[in-house]
Amino acid sequence: MSDTTPQELDTILAAAAAAQDAWATSPPAARAAALDEVAAAMGREADRLVALAEEESHLPEARLRGELTRTRFQLGHFAGILREGSFLDATIDHADPDWPPAPRPDLRLAQYGLGPVVVFAGGNFPFAFSVAGGDTASALAAGCPVVLKVHPGHPRLSAATAEIVVAALVEAGAPSGAFAVVYGEQAGREAVVDPRVAAGSFTGSLGGGRALFDLASGRPSPIPFFAEMGSLNPVFVTSAALEADRDALLDGFVGSFTLGVGQFCTKPGMLIAPAGSGIEDALRARVEAVAAAPMLSEGIAGRYGDTLTALRAEPASRDVVVAAAEGVPDGLAAGATLISATAADFLVDRDGLLVECFGPASVLVSYADEEELTAVAQAFDGQLTATLHALADEPLATRLLPLLRRIAGRVLFNDWPTGVAVTAAMQHGGPYPATTAASTTSVGDLAIRRFLRPVSYQGVPDPLLPPALQDANPWGLPRRVDGRLVPSPDQAENEVT
Amino acid sequence: MSDTTPQELDTILAAAAAAQDAWATSPPAARAAALDEVAAAMGREADRLVALAEEESHLPEARLRGELTRTRFQLGHFAGILREGSFLDATIDHADPDWPPAPRPDLRLAQYGLGPVVVFAGGNFPFAFSVAGGDTASALAAGCPVVLKVHPGHPRLSAATAEIVVAALVEAGAPSGAFAVVYGEQAGREAVVDPRVAAGSFTGSLGGGRALFDLASGRPSPIPFFAEMGSLNPVFVTSAALEADRDALLDGFVGSFTLGVGQFCTKPGMLIAPAGSGIEDALRARVEAVAAAPMLSEGIAGRYGDTLTALRAEPASRDVVVAAAEGVPDGLAAGATLISATAADFLVDRDGLLVECFGPASVLVSYADEEELTAVAQAFDGQLTATLHALADEPLATRLLPLLRRIAGRVLFNDWPTGVAVTAAMQHGGPYPATTAASTTSVGDLAIRRFLRPVSYQGVPDPLLPPALQDANPWGLPRRVDGRLVPSPDQAENEVT
Repeated sequence: MSDTTPQELDTILAAAAAAQDAWATSPPAARAAALDEVAAAMGREADRLVALAEEESHLPEARLRGELTRTRFQLGHFAGILREGSFLDATIDHADPDWPPAPRPDLRLAQYGLGPVVVFAGGNFPFAFSVAGGDTASALAAGCPVVLKVHPGHPRLSAATAEIVVAALVEAGAPSGAFAVVYGEQAGREAVVDPRVAAGSFTGSLGGGRALFDLASGRPSPIPFFAEMGSLNPVFVTSAALEADRDALLDGFVGSFTLGVGQFCTKPGMLIAPAGSGIEDALRARVEAVAAAPMLSEGIAGRYGDTLTALRAEPASRDVVVAAAEGVPDGLAAGATLISATAADFLVDRDGLLVECFGPASVLVSYADEEELTAVAQAFDGQLTATLHALADEPLATRLLPLLRRIAGRVLFNDWPTGVAVTAAMQHGGPYPATTAASTTSVGDLAIRRFLRPVSYQGVPDPLLPPALQDANPWGLPRRVDGRLVPSPDQAENEVT
Repeated sequence: MSDTTPQELDTILAAAAAAQDAWATSPPAARAAALDEVAAAMGREADRLVALAEEESHLPEARLRGELTRTRFQLGHFAGILREGSFLDATIDHADPDWPPAPRPDLRLAQYGLGPVVVFAGGNFPFAFSVAGGDTASALAAGCPVVLKVHPGHPRLSAATAEIVVAALVEAGAPSGAFAVVYGEQAGREAVVDPRVAAGSFTGSLGGGRALFDLASGRPSPIPFFAEMGSLNPVFVTSAALEADRDALLDGFVGSFTLGVGQFCTKPGMLIAPAGSGIEDALRARVEAVAAAPMLSEGIAGRYGDTLTALRAEPASRDVVVAAAEGVPDGLAAGATLISATAADFLVDRDGLLVECFGPASVLVSYADEEELTAVAQAFDGQLTATLHALADEPLATRLLPLLRRIAGRVLFNDWPTGVAVTAAMQHGGPYPATTAASTTSVGDLAIRRFLRPVSYQGVPDPLLPPALQDANPWGLPRRVDGRLVPSPDQAENEVT
């Protein structure tokens, strides 16, 4: 695909701007139907899409079929959120002459889409974080037109997906500017600084995300930019946990950091475990046994090698285990790698180790005692996830969990961070540098909040109010009325399905 | 008060950082009790505080007493929000092996305070947007320690208020670093870029707010900065509305733009009304009759004069009416002023008129027909408020209201924007340049969301979970469990009072 020209971009942004009011004020049920239609259309084209994805991403078919299912589920899940209606925060405060400290006029509030959103697709999830992925689903659900910047790793899949999305939205009656894709770094940057764009989102590297965040914040009229970037996802293991279930723990760790050739933002990039437990030898055997697999692209495999070289050159780095990468095309090959360091060395000189290595590599940090373990837990900045393996009743768990909450968006106990459930209670985000907006998430129900802004209506007569705020509640929303939560009249249970 | 030194600031920020975990994880009921205690303590000291405020702000006693009442109400209102508990977004998704597209682990989410917040006090509300004002109340409610940068317009009142706040928080058992004040521009800027600070908020001018936003966004680790800045708050009047209730409308307009000597961020700075209706002469008489009153400070009165001079020099400016300002100390005096322009001239050369003039001035823009009226309505960028005076059943109202929703955070009908009710449905915010964060509000229940971030817990055993997410629901919260809203067991009605 050739890069989008400035003229093409202008046409696309003009269409998005023209679509924004109609889309933002459309009934949530209409947007839900549109998302369902996109999901259904992608299901009908599954074979063709998965074949394209295999070719371009070198990921195995089973993984891609699962990811496509997840992507369709995400679209449907946001359709459910739209039908349930709580996301609108519909609030009615009737006029109250006795309201303290001053008489209150009739005030009613609802959320509206911010306006056109430019979404930068991620390379490691050609479906779930790409053209019809989570950011597209949540932005469209919020009522925002989406201009999606295609990831260069899978352009033909992106074009095919975009065609399906556009056709499905038209079929569902969405305005024609509600969705479009653009190609090329320059078009992406131009979209971020275009006055017609109201927000941006991104999944990728720290460098790329920060550069776009800076563009968005530095505009004459700044816009929010939600970048989900790097994360080490440290895993802390107590001696008791290691003793209790040593084999399962070590298998789980190696399985998690090499899953998908280590190309997940939630890959555990560091294991902090007790020294002198023989854990290094036990891990060596497991790492050496990891089957080789191709990475997403030659560029990514090359950067993986470069990052590993830098990590191995760190003063704190000690033993290194590298699995063979036979049977995989040279340019794409990546051997699973484990680097070791002592907690004492890490604490002296850690900055070079606190770098995400995108690929099947992790760092084992061995601690001598609980004091070192605690010190390491306090050495991290923002993370998507932090994990503790411990016994539920050991006091150490009670002391460590609050430290993990401080640094991470998701705290796991005796589990592994790869695998991100699409559900209401999911937080896929975290303090900087995991993301540029710690208060937000890119997966889970709260993802829709990124793209909304509240509008209050004061003294507006009922027939002139938007349906969400009319007395008759024609959209059947759950609302807060004079301070009291009133469930939807149609859905007594207000269930998101 | 002398400026806070770097050493003093360091001590204050260290205390705030040390307090953040204890405060963020304290039971909401404990924070509610602390806010109530602050409100009560301010009530006991009302006479002394109001006397100090009169001296330093030159505002009349009755206004200040009302504002103090509002400020105490705000604190109590956020205590109510804490006791009701919805702000926590407590969400429980039980493990579900059949969850599509993949088995779901046990996931539970709640909101936590972001960390220390630096709040820049506003000058025009020595109580409601100052030391114990709305941002302090919502940040403390969220569980964030507050470092408040004092406004130079009322330093002694600020010091007295701070003493009361600190003592009340100590009395209520809050950690000692939960609140402190700092003095001086330099200390404020240093706080914004300090790594221990997690967010900032501001009420004031566009220039000041943008400069601090740029500092916050440009940090090595960027933080959100919620600046509420300038707004013109345009008021649109249809011919039919003018005919229907001419005197009340003109009285209301002059009353609103001169209220509090025009020193409100919601002051209607522009009236867009039908030409040839004799409205200019009718307004002239009213403006000339406005009683003179002192502005907040000589600096503000000086800037008022400068802005007026620039506005009057604009090519589109025509007739100007200036009321006398007798009986007021020279340096503080500000005469009510009305500048006139035609919509045709405004549409040709409007940038110089689209500037907030802080003080008792407004611009009358006269339109020849509905086409001009509509064009003017589309000429504005982000506003805190936009107001329509129309008949409820005229088609023009239906066409104009959506245009006003696009530009403003609050849309009023046959009312005036000055007066901001503290209630759930209030939105006091708007697209840039009204604020730096269109998705947020500085007044109303949603203000607490600015200072929160969600944390997910995956697979954490019940005794290790925070109380908000334990099965037994010891805090009695309303929660979303497996997609279903479950009201609080203790408060079946979940009412915010």
